[in-house]
Amino acid sequence: MSAIPAAFAQRTAQLSDEVTRPFPSSRKIHVQGSRPDLRVPMREVTQAPTDGRTGREENPPIYLYDTSGPYTDPTTQIDLLAGLQDLRGAWIAERGDTEPLAGPTSAYGRARQDDPALDHLRFAHRRTPRRARAGVNVTQMHYARRGIVTPEMEYIAIRENVRLTELRADPRYARLLRQHRGEPCGAGLPEVITPEFVRDEIAAGRAIIPANINHPELEPMIIGRNFRVKINTNIGNSSLTSSIEEEVEKMVWSARWGGDTLMDLSTGKHIHETREWILRNAPVPIGTVPIYQALEKVDGRPEELTWELVRDTFIEQAEQGVDYFTIHAGVLLRYIPLTAERLTGIVSRGGSILAKWCLAHHQENFLYTHFEEICEIMKAYDVAFSLGDGLRPGSIADANDAAQFAELETLGELTRIAWRHDVQVMIEGPGHVPLQRVKENVDKELADCLEAPFYTLGPLVTDIAPAYDHITSGIGAANIGWHGTAMLCYVTPKEHLGLPNKQDVRDGIITYKIAAHAADLAKGLPGAQIRDNALSKARFEFRWDDQFNLSLDPERAREYHDQTLPHDSHKVA
Amino acid sequence: MSAIPAAFAQRTAQLSDEVTRPFPSSRKIHVQGSRPDLRVPMREVTQAPTDGRTGREENPPIYLYDTSGPYTDPTTQIDLLAGLQDLRGAWIAERGDTEPLAGPTSAYGRARQDDPALDHLRFAHRRTPRRARAGVNVTQMHYARRGIVTPEMEYIAIRENVRLTELRADPRYARLLRQHRGEPCGAGLPEVITPEFVRDEIAAGRAIIPANINHPELEPMIIGRNFRVKINTNIGNSSLTSSIEEEVEKMVWSARWGGDTLMDLSTGKHIHETREWILRNAPVPIGTVPIYQALEKVDGRPEELTWELVRDTFIEQAEQGVDYFTIHAGVLLRYIPLTAERLTGIVSRGGSILAKWCLAHHQENFLYTHFEEICEIMKAYDVAFSLGDGLRPGSIADANDAAQFAELETLGELTRIAWRHDVQVMIEGPGHVPLQRVKENVDKELADCLEAPFYTLGPLVTDIAPAYDHITSGIGAANIGWHGTAMLCYVTPKEHLGLPNKQDVRDGIITYKIAAHAADLAKGLPGAQIRDNALSKARFEFRWDDQFNLSLDPERAREYHDQTLPHDSHKVA
Repeated sequence: MSAIPAAFAQRTAQLSDEVTRPFPSSRKIHVQGSRPDLRVPMREVTQAPTDGRTGREENPPIYLYDTSGPYTDPTTQIDLLAGLQDLRGAWIAERGDTEPLAGPTSAYGRARQDDPALDHLRFAHRRTPRRARAGVNVTQMHYARRGIVTPEMEYIAIRENVRLTELRADPRYARLLRQHRGEPCGAGLPEVITPEFVRDEIAAGRAIIPANINHPELEPMIIGRNFRVKINTNIGNSSLTSSIEEEVEKMVWSARWGGDTLMDLSTGKHIHETREWILRNAPVPIGTVPIYQALEKVDGRPEELTWELVRDTFIEQAEQGVDYFTIHAGVLLRYIPLTAERLTGIVSRGGSILAKWCLAHHQENFLYTHFEEICEIMKAYDVAFSLGDGLRPGSIADANDAAQFAELETLGELTRIAWRHDVQVMIEGPGHVPLQRVKENVDKELADCLEAPFYTLGPLVTDIAPAYDHITSGIGAANIGWHGTAMLCYVTPKEHLGLPNKQDVRDGIITYKIAAHAADLAKGLPGAQIRDNALSKARFEFRWDDQFNLSLDPERAREYHDQTLPHDSHKVA
Repeated sequence: MSAIPAAFAQRTAQLSDEVTRPFPSSRKIHVQGSRPDLRVPMREVTQAPTDGRTGREENPPIYLYDTSGPYTDPTTQIDLLAGLQDLRGAWIAERGDTEPLAGPTSAYGRARQDDPALDHLRFAHRRTPRRARAGVNVTQMHYARRGIVTPEMEYIAIRENVRLTELRADPRYARLLRQHRGEPCGAGLPEVITPEFVRDEIAAGRAIIPANINHPELEPMIIGRNFRVKINTNIGNSSLTSSIEEEVEKMVWSARWGGDTLMDLSTGKHIHETREWILRNAPVPIGTVPIYQALEKVDGRPEELTWELVRDTFIEQAEQGVDYFTIHAGVLLRYIPLTAERLTGIVSRGGSILAKWCLAHHQENFLYTHFEEICEIMKAYDVAFSLGDGLRPGSIADANDAAQFAELETLGELTRIAWRHDVQVMIEGPGHVPLQRVKENVDKELADCLEAPFYTLGPLVTDIAPAYDHITSGIGAANIGWHGTAMLCYVTPKEHLGLPNKQDVRDGIITYKIAAHAADLAKGLPGAQIRDNALSKARFEFRWDDQFNLSLDPERAREYHDQTLPHDSHKVA
């Protein structure tokens, strides 16, 4: 029935072995929730016993938070042409507040659907989009504020705990559970995360669950500073149609190494079709910057953007299932002159587009003036806001300046408006900030934006190391995560220089997993130190395989291990 | 005259092109001091002009602190067989407080000199060692406390300023000199570093100048928290004689990328001869852990170590010109039981050797009981103490525990003793520390050890990322540097896994240059932001070559730059 040519279908159906092979000594387990269709995946890593002078000691399995979806589960049949299993479909349907649409309601979505020239690369098993029934709000925040604990919230509670309650009751884990007292910097981390706690945090706006009703395939996750610090990765094609399968492969690759969410920043020809393939196969929430696609629709001329065109793009993407939109509604006309004396002007692509529009029309940013209408769209699909920092600094010199902070204050104003609509919000942050001024960013965000989750790019703590900006920014990320940032947007070694390849993506992700975990440890997240303790015990006992298997990148750790090295030197840790 | 076979001579005389080629658009300049033989090297990076809408703007040259020695200076003739020029020989001689010896005075040094079997790999142009005249103290601290500003101190003042005074008087630099206010965390950073300020810091023990009178080839540098944060690298051969030229090449490679000091941790067969080659060609101070070599002399059996043997090793190495010794004199018998309940016991190699000796003999650590005698040796050659942390934690779990802090208090006691002898001291620190407990380490070190410079390994802020421990530790290093650590000992990606190759060393060094520079920026070191500002301006203006040339690793930045990338995307910084 599919119009997809066999050759294309074959390419898109295949993932390379390196993105799907299971991790060593690991298996996917599922923790059962309160209903049969609520099964939360985790990774279980088994360990070898210790052969010591006083006999053999068992080393219990270690459980890891798992973002990789079904791709690392050899018991699951992957069919990219069919997409992932519809995990949340029943939960959404049984709430009875949404309805299936006859088809896309955006003009652009209909045009693409009706264009036979696209048949050969269209995802075949499209679902009919859903939308909230008229006048109804279907956001997780709306449910939370009405006291409803959704299955998504329960799923997240189980997921965040990673079996901590069971481990505490098991004497084999007593020693591994020892942990330093954290310095939470104002976070309130409970000993056990309950579904009710998740609800409270969502209701208060301190956390978000990006989960569009049209992306039922995703495994629910939460972004908030009283939970594990998360990381986001970016992918994006340039222009060739042949790259659809590459983009899907990149998405799976990102999830494999630990990407919690993924932004599709594609700017090429078939953005719409590529996105469909990604969403239908993505176990993680997907974010976009809709203005990027809108700009493609006007051939790259910012001044030709209109509210109607951008509005249609929002609906187009919401009906595909995008879970959060970066929207640069805080780039106000009056803030643009504040960037004139900067060393590096406006470096955010979205910020630059909006600034050009404002200056060309001598009008206020239409995303700001139409913000309430955007809220209406967001709540009909449960798309979360990621309020973009279009005026973020592009250099250490411009950090924490008047333009950046003026915009941040406006993002606070917009947060209040979104929350009046029960629409979920997170706030984007810099960029480039010297170490001693990192905390100031978090403190101001929490104050101005009423503790809405902070989502920062890095920040880079120095500008002098292009080719190593995953590291310059990983230092900033660990610090800003500790101080209260909820999600860290990764940076690869190619930042400022070129397009990242697969190994760059892996380096960026592992660096950010390190930063996020360092932040969790620093805050004192209950249970965070188990993996460190287990790995260090394995290292001290020369259980090399366990050391590799418990690490963030077992494959590279094993590869780097040099068998020629005398054992003794290894003890110098 | 040399007994070195031609083949060996040829190998040792050649450095590979990649360790000596000059950096692009750079030249070595020398700033003249108060005497003709005091010429301080720096790197000058020239920039292209900016072609803007309002005309052409000149971009002035940027001056960089340069550790690479003459190797990056195409006007210097390098001859590894002859060694580097004797930069400080006249300064040392004219002080009139040292005398040349007839030859090595250590039993081991004499035996090696007299062994014809070593002729074929011996450095040919050995200088006669010097020693303080009887009863005289020749340390920089001793001079400083008597009010003497040595040429070394003046050299360092010029070097640390990197022409800042001239730049302030030059209007072309006005914008580049803009800098965020720092948070110095108790450091006292002057606007300009004068020779007198260097003297004050040395006299107070807050900084050290590692500069053995038998290493006159080195370019003087300072380690102290009121100066630029420094980094140390480690090299070390295993056992093959053929590796002498490899070790020399590694030393030059380390200096090239920014290593301020280098520790030779060799454990192979010809440690003595390898060290001679390294020292005679090293523009940076060299440190060692003498107990490693002493252990080789007793075939790896710690219990057979004796004070006499170790004392002879100190003299052997001091007369070769080693600039600082790591000495684990704080591993006291009574502290060893404190490590029993640790997750990872004693992981320091030196700590482990001393602990074994103490337990085997049921006696106090002989380095502790003979500490005053060690001071007598140190002051006769001006070798600085690097008081080792033999009980440092080998995992996050063991950080900041009773064993670690008990030893640190003893290092404070030993600092007092060393200072009574006017012997220079720095204090080694961990290792593995979660982010929220990093500051506590610095605060305790400053309090217990009376502000003697802190010299830390990392610390790693999590244990879960073997193969990426340059990054886990780089995060800790930036933070501990900010809070007051004076020198950061690098960690490579192979840490815990195997022996680093050349690229691992480069990755480790650049990561630590990033950490040290991030710390300088955070503290508000005057002038630290110039390089960031110049590079960011170049980036914003698409002066790609200038962006590469000003970066820590111009070669990799250029390599990563992908010409296929559309210009616009680059502006997303």
